[in-house]
Amino acid sequence: MNLSEFQLIAKIQQQVALHNPQVICGIGDDCAVVEKGGGFYSLMTTDCVVEKVHFDLKYFTAFEVGKKAFAVSLSDIAAMGGTPKYALITLGIPETMKEKWIDEITAGFLQEAQSFNVSIVGGDISRSPNGFWASLTQIGEVEMRHCKFRKGAKKGDLVFVTGPLGSSALGFHLLKKGKANESPHVRAHKTPRPRIGAGQFLGKETGVTSMIDLSDGLLQDLEHILEQSHVGAKLQFERIPREKDLDLLAREYKLSLHDLVLGGGEDYQLLFTVDPVTEDEMQKRAQKVGFKFYPIGSIVDAEEGLKVFDETGIELKKVKKGFDHFK
Amino acid sequence: MNLSEFQLIAKIQQQVALHNPQVICGIGDDCAVVEKGGGFYSLMTTDCVVEKVHFDLKYFTAFEVGKKAFAVSLSDIAAMGGTPKYALITLGIPETMKEKWIDEITAGFLQEAQSFNVSIVGGDISRSPNGFWASLTQIGEVEMRHCKFRKGAKKGDLVFVTGPLGSSALGFHLLKKGKANESPHVRAHKTPRPRIGAGQFLGKETGVTSMIDLSDGLLQDLEHILEQSHVGAKLQFERIPREKDLDLLAREYKLSLHDLVLGGGEDYQLLFTVDPVTEDEMQKRAQKVGFKFYPIGSIVDAEEGLKVFDETGIELKKVKKGFDHFK
Repeated sequence: MNLSEFQLIAKIQQQVALHNPQVICGIGDDCAVVEKGGGFYSLMTTDCVVEKVHFDLKYFTAFEVGKKAFAVSLSDIAAMGGTPKYALITLGIPETMKEKWIDEITAGFLQEAQSFNVSIVGGDISRSPNGFWASLTQIGEVEMRHCKFRKGAKKGDLVFVTGPLGSSALGFHLLKKGKANESPHVRAHKTPRPRIGAGQFLGKETGVTSMIDLSDGLLQDLEHILEQSHVGAKLQFERIPREKDLDLLAREYKLSLHDLVLGGGEDYQLLFTVDPVTEDEMQKRAQKVGFKFYPIGSIVDAEEGLKVFDETGIELKKVKKGFDHFK
Repeated sequence: MNLSEFQLIAKIQQQVALHNPQVICGIGDDCAVVEKGGGFYSLMTTDCVVEKVHFDLKYFTAFEVGKKAFAVSLSDIAAMGGTPKYALITLGIPETMKEKWIDEITAGFLQEAQSFNVSIVGGDISRSPNGFWASLTQIGEVEMRHCKFRKGAKKGDLVFVTGPLGSSALGFHLLKKGKANESPHVRAHKTPRPRIGAGQFLGKETGVTSMIDLSDGLLQDLEHILEQSHVGAKLQFERIPREKDLDLLAREYKLSLHDLVLGGGEDYQLLFTVDPVTEDEMQKRAQKVGFKFYPIGSIVDAEEGLKVFDETGIELKKVKKGFDHFK
């Protein structure tokens, strides 16, 4: 296998011709979107976690694995402005795995399901000859007029994120160094919160023109919006929100701050674009209900591509774009 | 892990308390059933195939693995009387796997999807450190009044199956012996057909009181109906349909005919129960549209349990009930 995850998905996508008019959006957005009737879309998404690929039991308890896997799969529903409803979970379980471990991972799934009022309605279980894996399907819904897609961003729109970036990647580094289990960065890595409430708020904002969740890294995920909207973007690095001590810790651990923030991945914040005419009103409404959103740049012509500038106006070069769970 | 697949599912089921009135049926039937609106239920089911557990690449081409995995997951929709609509597929792919292999398994998924008018709308891909696996979610729908469950069978009902049993298990044995790739039994094992049309027909029959698909073996699957309907059953072994040469080949290969037919599994026929008052009319309607169903016994009181009799009226003992993919 020499293909990346994205090349492979693109390839399968080409083969999977969609001839069903009820399918609004198949492979290629955060969720599949199909007509449900009554003014609603159904949202469907599937995600998997694989031992030694997505997590290592050296750093994660079973409970944390379950909680994070569930949260991550919900994040795709958040990115469409949707409400999660039902989940199906399939587990591949090595024979050596203890029953207690299964109880704990199930408790992790359940805690997250209860937090977001999701009914776990089905599943399948198999022995796995080597290593644990789980595959989660989330089914949600959204009013048709409130559904946001990756396409829709246009020149002049502002680019926003819903919260600090880079912490999950830093947290993972801290874990590997055996440091600071209580650090907020480690928490960001181990138990990310899907931004369901923020996604629903933004779904109702008519000025929001596109949305995606930040799973693979800011630049890589933003690229999906740019490709599907046929636009480019300029970002100001200094405006990208991050936890107070992130810059300091990056220096201390000799990590590239740019790589952490622009390519770190797994922060599960939302990235969205907003028509500038509506920005002030949106921010006022957000503040009223306790959300804070961060403008980090703007949408430009496709030919200008994706560029990031530092506070002196100099373009950053050679930044790591993100990561690929397939490689 | 000392639990069986069924014990583990039962355990998780206990933990997954359902408090959602829209959930008609969660874990414990062939599909989860939830209210969709407009007089319809949504059906959701997930199934997985794991290399070395469900198939061995010695006996299966990639195309066959894809086609069978898809067919098997559709069989659960058939068992509810439903129409499949959408599928999501997650793949765990070893690094050593060739791109051509992925193309072929995808072609297998697609051929089956096209046969049954299913749109593959989403998926996820991960590297798998050891061995291939796939997890498939199928979403379907059924008119509320046409949905059949495992519960509902009552004393006096007749027990039917939709076609021959035991062939898949025999075919698997032939494959292992390196025999007869062209045998219908090998075909039954490699490329089973989900009985979608028969399921839809039976869904519309008001006299059909319960239904399940035969994946794990006749007795084991029938037990699920008996448990959920709080009844017992008596079967006549000689009435259970099987391919003409099954008895002969069982003798030739020194296999227990009873074990093949009663516990073989993976035939993916439907088993259903029918109010005897409606039987004649149902059979007439079935014949008109080209279906043939086989009465194999009747429902009795729960205290009588599940018994199988030979043609002389003697009860069969020590029959293998089925298999558990978990062990």
